[in-house]
Amino acid sequence: MAYRVDLNCDLGESFGAYQLGRDQEILQFVTSANIACGFHAGDPAVMRRTVRLALDNNVDIGAHPGLPDLVGFGRRAMDITAEEAYDLVVYQIGALAGFVKAEGGTMRHVKPHGALYNMAAKNQALADGIAGAIAKVNPELILFGLSGSALVKAGRRFGLKTAQEVFADRTYQADGTLTPRSQADAMITNDQQAAAQVIKMVREQTVQSRDGKAVKIQADTVCIHGDGLHALTFARHLRNVLAEAGIDVQAVAKQ
Amino acid sequence: MAYRVDLNCDLGESFGAYQLGRDQEILQFVTSANIACGFHAGDPAVMRRTVRLALDNNVDIGAHPGLPDLVGFGRRAMDITAEEAYDLVVYQIGALAGFVKAEGGTMRHVKPHGALYNMAAKNQALADGIAGAIAKVNPELILFGLSGSALVKAGRRFGLKTAQEVFADRTYQADGTLTPRSQADAMITNDQQAAAQVIKMVREQTVQSRDGKAVKIQADTVCIHGDGLHALTFARHLRNVLAEAGIDVQAVAKQ
Amino acid sequence: MAYRVDLNCDLGESFGAYQLGRDQEILQFVTSANIACGFHAGDPAVMRRTVRLALDNNVDIGAHPGLPDLVGFGRRAMDITAEEAYDLVVYQIGALAGFVKAEGGTMRHVKPHGALYNMAAKNQALADGIAGAIAKVNPELILFGLSGSALVKAGRRFGLKTAQEVFADRTYQADGTLTPRSQADAMITNDQQAAAQVIKMVREQTVQSRDGKAVKIQADTVCIHGDGLHALTFARHLRNVLAEAGIDVQAVAKQ
Amino acid sequence: MAYRVDLNCDLGESFGAYQLGRDQEILQFVTSANIACGFHAGDPAVMRRTVRLALDNNVDIGAHPGLPDLVGFGRRAMDITAEEAYDLVVYQIGALAGFVKAEGGTMRHVKPHGALYNMAAKNQALADGIAGAIAKVNPELILFGLSGSALVKAGRRFGLKTAQEVFADRTYQADGTLTPRSQADAMITNDQQAAAQVIKMVREQTVQSRDGKAVKIQADTVCIHGDGLHALTFARHLRNVLAEAGIDVQAVAKQ
Repeated sequence: MAYRVDLNCDLGESFGAYQLGRDQEILQFVTSANIACGFHAGDPAVMRRTVRLALDNNVDIGAHPGLPDLVGFGRRAMDITAEEAYDLVVYQIGALAGFVKAEGGTMRHVKPHGALYNMAAKNQALADGIAGAIAKVNPELILFGLSGSALVKAGRRFGLKTAQEVFADRTYQADGTLTPRSQADAMITNDQQAAAQVIKMVREQTVQSRDGKAVKIQADTVCIHGDGLHALTFARHLRNVLAEAGIDVQAVAKQ
Repeated sequence: MAYRVDLNCDLGESFGAYQLGRDQEILQFVTSANIACGFHAGDPAVMRRTVRLALDNNVDIGAHPGLPDLVGFGRRAMDITAEEAYDLVVYQIGALAGFVKAEGGTMRHVKPHGALYNMAAKNQALADGIAGAIAKVNPELILFGLSGSALVKAGRRFGLKTAQEVFADRTYQADGTLTPRSQADAMITNDQQAAAQVIKMVREQTVQSRDGKAVKIQADTVCIHGDGLHALTFARHLRNVLAEAGIDVQAVAKQ
Repeated sequence: MAYRVDLNCDLGESFGAYQLGRDQEILQFVTSANIACGFHAGDPAVMRRTVRLALDNNVDIGAHPGLPDLVGFGRRAMDITAEEAYDLVVYQIGALAGFVKAEGGTMRHVKPHGALYNMAAKNQALADGIAGAIAKVNPELILFGLSGSALVKAGRRFGLKTAQEVFADRTYQADGTLTPRSQADAMITNDQQAAAQVIKMVREQTVQSRDGKAVKIQADTVCIHGDGLHALTFARHLRNVLAEAGIDVQAVAKQ
Repeated sequence: MAYRVDLNCDLGESFGAYQLGRDQEILQFVTSANIACGFHAGDPAVMRRTVRLALDNNVDIGAHPGLPDLVGFGRRAMDITAEEAYDLVVYQIGALAGFVKAEGGTMRHVKPHGALYNMAAKNQALADGIAGAIAKVNPELILFGLSGSALVKAGRRFGLKTAQEVFADRTYQADGTLTPRSQADAMITNDQQAAAQVIKMVREQTVQSRDGKAVKIQADTVCIHGDGLHALTFARHLRNVLAEAGIDVQAVAKQ
């Protein structure tokens, strides 16, 4: 049996006069695009152009809903209710779906952004709000969440297909969660090491924790960064390493 | 042949802690609800509740997209391009469609709001941007525009079903346009006179202009206000007068 | 020695087409107005009119800065840094100061709003950010904070004059903090009882906790609500009761 | 008598995660910084940092208020009233003044941004709204406006000191107005030619119009762009040419 994995990237995070990310270039390397929907980043024109770009590159499209906090880029936790999470996910999926429909494509997945993603990884009520929103708007959509998180569990509970996300450039703790960025060894800065971690997660379904334990992990999709020159270099490197390792890179919906 | 007309009202214009309009009450009298989509008014929670309310009252649902100007309530003309008009209409229709889908309903129409509606009545490029957006997102949607306007013509050009809107409480000029609000006789404050104007427009497809001329006008749908006690009183009065005149009140999509 | 207390009220919380609060009426009963600055509520036009109204009623003016969350009315906790708190307080004080200057008045105090007020009551770093902002922009401004809170302590540490705020309609716990609204007995709904609690706090510097203990409390200013008919009735009642008790009602800056 | 001119640049136009402009570098070449105030660009943290940067570089600080249109970068004309212009200028000057005060500096001038600047160049009511706002908040502030514009005239009428702005890289028409960007010859792309135009405007108080006429023009301050590598190169070139021509480069407030 061949191994397979999806590479996903956050895209469409420009806004008005502000450019962010190298969308056009990174689209050569990924198989799923998570497109910002106007709350933490993105605007209607950026959304239209990004949807078009993803379709032209044959990359699967997903909504990337975030908190209503443009100045904070959706990265600041907000004390929202599960119902508020539901509402803002319905709204943002719908808004992006308008552009996907207009451009003749099909939306495939949803990946919450930033603080919304992080809160939903641990908070079951929020996770249910998000999963419930997707189930109501379009139960065919695949929910992307942190591997082993409350969000993935909520997705299953609502009957959604889910994709468990892993990180190439982050270290993991013994309980399978990411080492907080406040810790010195949170990041993997060596590209070879980062790629090797991905290979191991895909092939062996384990990751070695920072304290040396083998931890079970499901790696359906890998988060790839899309800004900066190094991000592009790493993406190209990872594609090469995955190809050499005989791991197919495919969008989750096509697996 | 029976005469028929639709009564439409702008709804869902509350925002966060701010309440606006008597949505629950006015829904008894109208057949089409134009629901704000978060740009000039409305927020995700308000949209969800308003869609639910319209469905519970068996009132047809339409999107009511506006300019991105919450503090100005979408009433201030902005020098946007046709492409910007296209983008903001796609976005807002999509966002509302998310809630309509989630609540199990079907969106039927689109009526631009405020300055966007007024600009599109005269500016063909903007009108094309709006009509083109609807045609791309969902060509089944009916475009509501000022009777005789560039917007209605654009809708036809894009193959959309259109509904021409008239006003009960506004006087008309000899060229079929509304008397500007800056004029002393722009408004009809007498309810009997306002209702009579509607009857005449529906039955005879004419309206008497302020200078006494009979002007051809198409009256597919009448704009009903939804805030204030008088609005409710007038809506009830108009329903009664239309019933007495043997004019059926029906949503455009059901006609 | 005469007893004195200030009555403060949140004002200027309308926004664009949205009206909130009975500013004109409540100004007859209070001595300090906390005016929203455009982040959680208020807009430039509302700020100008509210400053004018306060000056016309000889009521002291303070800034009422909130979190950048209009749709949540600044009531949702956000995980902001102390520096972000500093920045948004400097910005909002400055913006309101523009209108106070333009109308020929003098700003006297600052009272954070909603979640910012609540977070700063407990979080010393945030409290320092807020107090530091005030000290930098105008060290003459009086900082209003929850009686006994981290915010009041931060104000003193930064050399500011502070005013400790108490609530007429909330019950207190044995440690001097407010009973959370989630508790059944959090609110005092009886006006006589609410007024009596204020009298006791001002005269005896104690409040009886919900479990019957006498708790020390400093009551420099009482928070008065400004929306709804009952708020006005209670404000009038409280003024009468305070007058009968020989307690002078005066703005903090005039004490 | 020595010739003198000010070089001004729009700064602080970043927002949240979005970087725009090379503020740190361009500050070496200009004498006046127009700092965005959060409506068309800028946020509280950016404002604080930009004020600090300008002070550290001994560059005069001015407010750069814009229309409330972040997604359009304040470049889209909006049909605002004179009172709305007044309000948004008071608000934004005040907000920036908070940071200038906190950092120990002094605000010297105000230059409206984008569409607000352009509308006020021709619309006397708007120009009066803007000038009136400045006169009320701080009559010491210098108003920067397009040379010969309604805005400059309004400033004088309100008793303000004004600075007439000219452009190095734009051609002029016979009536002294800028050639619209829609025309082929609107821009001067040759740096030598652009610098020479400035020298002529400062020394001879004339500019040669696109059809070869000598047109009277007052050049108190020159608008310098702050983004892109070429902008920096041109700024350095202009400084050199001005020095060689014996023209002092000084902030308007210091002239």
